[in-house]
Amino acid sequence: MPEVIKRIALGLEYQGTNYFGLQKQKSTEQTVQGCLELALNSVSNEVIKSFSSGRTDSGVHAQGQVMHFDTYADRQPREWVRGGNSLLPEDIRILWAREVNNDFHARFSALSRSYRYVIRNTEIPSALWSKRSLWVSTSLKVSCMRKAAKFLIGENDFSSFRGSGCQSHSPIRTLESLKITTNNEFIYIDISANSFLLNMVRIIVGTLLLVGKGDILPSDLEDILEKRDRRLSGKTVTSDGLYFIGPTYERKFKIPDLINSIV
Amino acid sequence: MPEVIKRIALGLEYQGTNYFGLQKQKSTEQTVQGCLELALNSVSNEVIKSFSSGRTDSGVHAQGQVMHFDTYADRQPREWVRGGNSLLPEDIRILWAREVNNDFHARFSALSRSYRYVIRNTEIPSALWSKRSLWVSTSLKVSCMRKAAKFLIGENDFSSFRGSGCQSHSPIRTLESLKITTNNEFIYIDISANSFLLNMVRIIVGTLLLVGKGDILPSDLEDILEKRDRRLSGKTVTSDGLYFIGPTYERKFKIPDLINSIV
Repeated sequence: MPEVIKRIALGLEYQGTNYFGLQKQKSTEQTVQGCLELALNSVSNEVIKSFSSGRTDSGVHAQGQVMHFDTYADRQPREWVRGGNSLLPEDIRILWAREVNNDFHARFSALSRSYRYVIRNTEIPSALWSKRSLWVSTSLKVSCMRKAAKFLIGENDFSSFRGSGCQSHSPIRTLESLKITTNNEFIYIDISANSFLLNMVRIIVGTLLLVGKGDILPSDLEDILEKRDRRLSGKTVTSDGLYFIGPTYERKFKIPDLINSIV
Repeated sequence: MPEVIKRIALGLEYQGTNYFGLQKQKSTEQTVQGCLELALNSVSNEVIKSFSSGRTDSGVHAQGQVMHFDTYADRQPREWVRGGNSLLPEDIRILWAREVNNDFHARFSALSRSYRYVIRNTEIPSALWSKRSLWVSTSLKVSCMRKAAKFLIGENDFSSFRGSGCQSHSPIRTLESLKITTNNEFIYIDISANSFLLNMVRIIVGTLLLVGKGDILPSDLEDILEKRDRRLSGKTVTSDGLYFIGPTYERKFKIPDLINSIV
């Protein structure tokens, strides 16, 4: 019987704290993809090359990262999940696995990506939320931040919100939604776009913080966007508070929705 | 002007994951109290000896640990908090500090202690909750666990729930409350007592898990308690899911309530 190649997609949750980002590197630095492929190699008895829906930077967490890979190994979904998890460190978990059509590509099939940024806005810091949120002790004006956010929605040139070293050909992105909600001492900034420039979420959050602190006006966002000048926007905030919620795909690919409750 | 000795109480939150428990040890192993005293030494320019409301074991977290110490240093509460936090690792935070009467003692004045144990009861593990919860994939019968919990309430001999190596003179403790609540995939077990034996919370949780899985009956708890035999109770569950919520004191000491939202 001839061997058949299968394309497997899987969902990945990780704490980014202990990793130099998602993407495998040639150096010996520990990455999420590097750990995942080592585990998958062992489950498949092959050398697996995996593809992600999008890279996450050093320290960034993920709840619904989607990866895919091709393999000749004949394994049930649960074998990829349980076998993989038994070989992975606890701060990386495979949530699900399923065989997909070979026209599915974790990155190129993705229609949009969503991130959540978690801020603890309180006078008192928290040890339990260190490395998992940004602590801001100045009381933030959330209503102003919401007004400011509206100026960024839509298809725009996001050069002012693009980290240096960004290798994208175009600075044009479509920001689909930017919602700010609160829950006790937490402020959540939820952002979706077709795709993101380098550090785009973290620079948007840094700029919204300037608004929340009253350093700039909500309407200044319009100007900052138009001027296409990185020097006008806010700081790149820490990766500690950033969670990649995941990509979306066409229904036909039958990629599961986010499984665990959002952080 | 003669120097005046002051007694300072402070509230402490920590992630226990990276520490060999609260209590300072003579060895070079990293402990919460060891880190705290190093920071306080630096703020006070003295050698500080601190006392806690109760030890927590390796890996156990705390949201409202209370400590006290005596000092000649004339510092404002905010100087202890900010100065201390600037010198502490991020996973240990001083939440508040205040001068207290010298008849206050963090340990001996404590009327009761409360713990929360966090279980994630779901088929799918979570990377983000690793080291901060116990993952149980078998669906637990929470109503049975609640029935079982009632048998433990009150003044009892908890020899069956006492870790080997426990140095308490008496195995008698008063379990004031044991409440089990759920929130999505989480089960919280909240336990209060005048004080606890070694590993008592973790053995109680391990025994309630046997009930939740249907391995024993709720009413078996009565028998296990009466027989005073550690071999009859459940496993000591991991410290990953255990949070010391804190002690209570008489109102006159004016110790602040828990500040941050409970996990």
